[in-house]
Amino acid sequence: MDEATKKQLSSYLEKCESELDRVMDFWLTNSHDQDHGGFFICLGRDGKVYDETKYCWLQGRQVWMYSKLYNNVPKYHTDTVLNAAKAGGEFLMKYVKNPETNKCFFAVTRSGDPVKIQRTIFSECFYMVAMAELARATGDDKYKKEAVAMMDQLQHWVMVDDTALGRPRLSGSPPVNSLAVAMIFIILVEELASDDAGLREKYAPLEEWSLKQTLQHIQRDGKVVLEVVGTDGEELPGSQGRLMNPGHAIETGWFLLQYAKKHNRPDLYDTAITTFITTPFLTGWDQKDGGIFYFLDADGLSPIQLEWNMKLWWPHNEALIAFLMAYRETREQKYLDHFQQVWDYTIKHFVDSDHGEWYGYLNQAGEVSQDFKGGPFKGCFHVPRCLLMCAQMLREILN
Amino acid sequence: MDEATKKQLSSYLEKCESELDRVMDFWLTNSHDQDHGGFFICLGRDGKVYDETKYCWLQGRQVWMYSKLYNNVPKYHTDTVLNAAKAGGEFLMKYVKNPETNKCFFAVTRSGDPVKIQRTIFSECFYMVAMAELARATGDDKYKKEAVAMMDQLQHWVMVDDTALGRPRLSGSPPVNSLAVAMIFIILVEELASDDAGLREKYAPLEEWSLKQTLQHIQRDGKVVLEVVGTDGEELPGSQGRLMNPGHAIETGWFLLQYAKKHNRPDLYDTAITTFITTPFLTGWDQKDGGIFYFLDADGLSPIQLEWNMKLWWPHNEALIAFLMAYRETREQKYLDHFQQVWDYTIKHFVDSDHGEWYGYLNQAGEVSQDFKGGPFKGCFHVPRCLLMCAQMLREILN
Repeated sequence: MDEATKKQLSSYLEKCESELDRVMDFWLTNSHDQDHGGFFICLGRDGKVYDETKYCWLQGRQVWMYSKLYNNVPKYHTDTVLNAAKAGGEFLMKYVKNPETNKCFFAVTRSGDPVKIQRTIFSECFYMVAMAELARATGDDKYKKEAVAMMDQLQHWVMVDDTALGRPRLSGSPPVNSLAVAMIFIILVEELASDDAGLREKYAPLEEWSLKQTLQHIQRDGKVVLEVVGTDGEELPGSQGRLMNPGHAIETGWFLLQYAKKHNRPDLYDTAITTFITTPFLTGWDQKDGGIFYFLDADGLSPIQLEWNMKLWWPHNEALIAFLMAYRETREQKYLDHFQQVWDYTIKHFVDSDHGEWYGYLNQAGEVSQDFKGGPFKGCFHVPRCLLMCAQMLREILN
Repeated sequence: MDEATKKQLSSYLEKCESELDRVMDFWLTNSHDQDHGGFFICLGRDGKVYDETKYCWLQGRQVWMYSKLYNNVPKYHTDTVLNAAKAGGEFLMKYVKNPETNKCFFAVTRSGDPVKIQRTIFSECFYMVAMAELARATGDDKYKKEAVAMMDQLQHWVMVDDTALGRPRLSGSPPVNSLAVAMIFIILVEELASDDAGLREKYAPLEEWSLKQTLQHIQRDGKVVLEVVGTDGEELPGSQGRLMNPGHAIETGWFLLQYAKKHNRPDLYDTAITTFITTPFLTGWDQKDGGIFYFLDADGLSPIQLEWNMKLWWPHNEALIAFLMAYRETREQKYLDHFQQVWDYTIKHFVDSDHGEWYGYLNQAGEVSQDFKGGPFKGCFHVPRCLLMCAQMLREILN
């Protein structure tokens, strides 16, 4: 590696570390509910709570993030981090999961009364990863048992029978293969079973299912990744069938690349790096204003999602992880160039130099559209996960 | 009236009439499904179908609009308009309503297979008004019976028991008073019973309920109209409690004003014109870029709706109706000035001089964000209703 590259990577590393500290300080200072456990999620620009509703995707994700940092970063291996993670985990077990159905609520009140339930599996997915990582942080087997039980339930819902999720069966709306459901199990199995050969073996069929379902989203001779396809992997008609979410494809790309590396599957490298990461990035990048579009239509029509042209924080987080991982694996300069392109946009537009955690929502031109730092779909997750993973990869590459 | 005002109003009238013709030509040409009945809703900028899904709010609204035009405008009193309205009505009865539950689907396939059902009452509201106006167009009593039966069902759901809508009862999410549900019955009773004293009397309690529920949305000493309040008319905590939708308040304003005029309730005039129309308009108008914001937070925080700062067509349609009605009733110049302010923005930004029906979705700066003319929530309704009502009011004022 030449000196210029080394210097460049070192400057990225320094920034990742300092931003991770600023971001975590924001959540550590503002989000802990000392009275009820769990986390305040709806935090304004400066950290003030603007709504006490506890959104449960984010409860689970924050428990996971805290536990991950506790387990991997000496600076965060503290009682404060561990105790907050435990309080979050207990809140999840006590208030978020319905023990009779295993369904988790989407939102609960500050004190844990149920507000909303979704007929999907995502609250449950984030419940599972929270428990899996909290088990490592605490060494308490009850959390691992909880994670395994939830994973068994998830597997049943996606591979056997999803009737209990409560979605009406309508003849005009046959089952589909959604990328969100397909791809998440690649990372869920990794999170639960990476250090447990028995579990890895147990969930191998689920992992295989997830991989197969995910690859079905490659359409039109590999030129697009579509969000929703038919159960036989066919392109569907209408707006739903043409929908692309470039950030989601890119995130799937690094899930796949990580999987390919761990499982010695070189045949998947090009699919991960070219089909899921680079092509959607090139399609999804806004040539006029910069940044990654939220949604696009594969035929170039207007997506029906009103927010299609907004620039959200998380696709940029995923692209940073993905291109740095692609560079780490291939050492090809072009991936470092893409990383830099995303990095420059991200640092310029999403970072709030006054108040820790990044902005989440920009308009097409890159101006802050909503200044809150946490909300129903944004919490202590994508930004610190990105900064942690990028810092880890940069250290690997530099060493 | 001075000559300058007369000339100004005449020019508005001329434009309303010519735009109504262009807009209706768009729907008459592009939206009729000759094979299955009903209407294609998802039409691109030039009228091409980009998705065959039939969204049922819009099926009902288009039947209503066609019937209304047939009944009120000689130019549209044609077999083509009547037959399309009838085909739409038959499609609604055959495919959209579930006769066992009276629930209507939110979306069906082109041939009528159910795609999506909402646990709300709006598909059913638009089914009801479609049937009521189609009964007048056809003179066929079966449609009126259908409308009355659905109105009885709606009354039961909102005043007696909404269990059958299927919303889960969650302890952290007590019932609320939503402006959308409250205000719609003012217009529903008017649409069904305006020419039937017996029905007017029958539904008087529903109308009173609607009025009372609607007025509870006036909060903070009349300075704001909030979208969601508690069932005792109290302001609710959090983002939901602070949500304002200026276009919705303005629409409610002209519903109220029309009601006040018909029922000789001068005590309601100021509430309608000042509290529901003018104040939300002044609060909701974007001082920087013009146009009416979609959502605002009563404390000036960022709304959690990603599309909050977009400029949608329908609030502008409602504001045109509302200010012209306020001017008609009071002859105060300031309402005509507000009308002109909205008119100038609307004509400049929403009208598509090449292809009939108006654009629906602009970004904050007023640029077209999505170029389709029909979609899941936009069809043959707000634009032609506005143009028809404005033309009618302008003629009244000029005579």
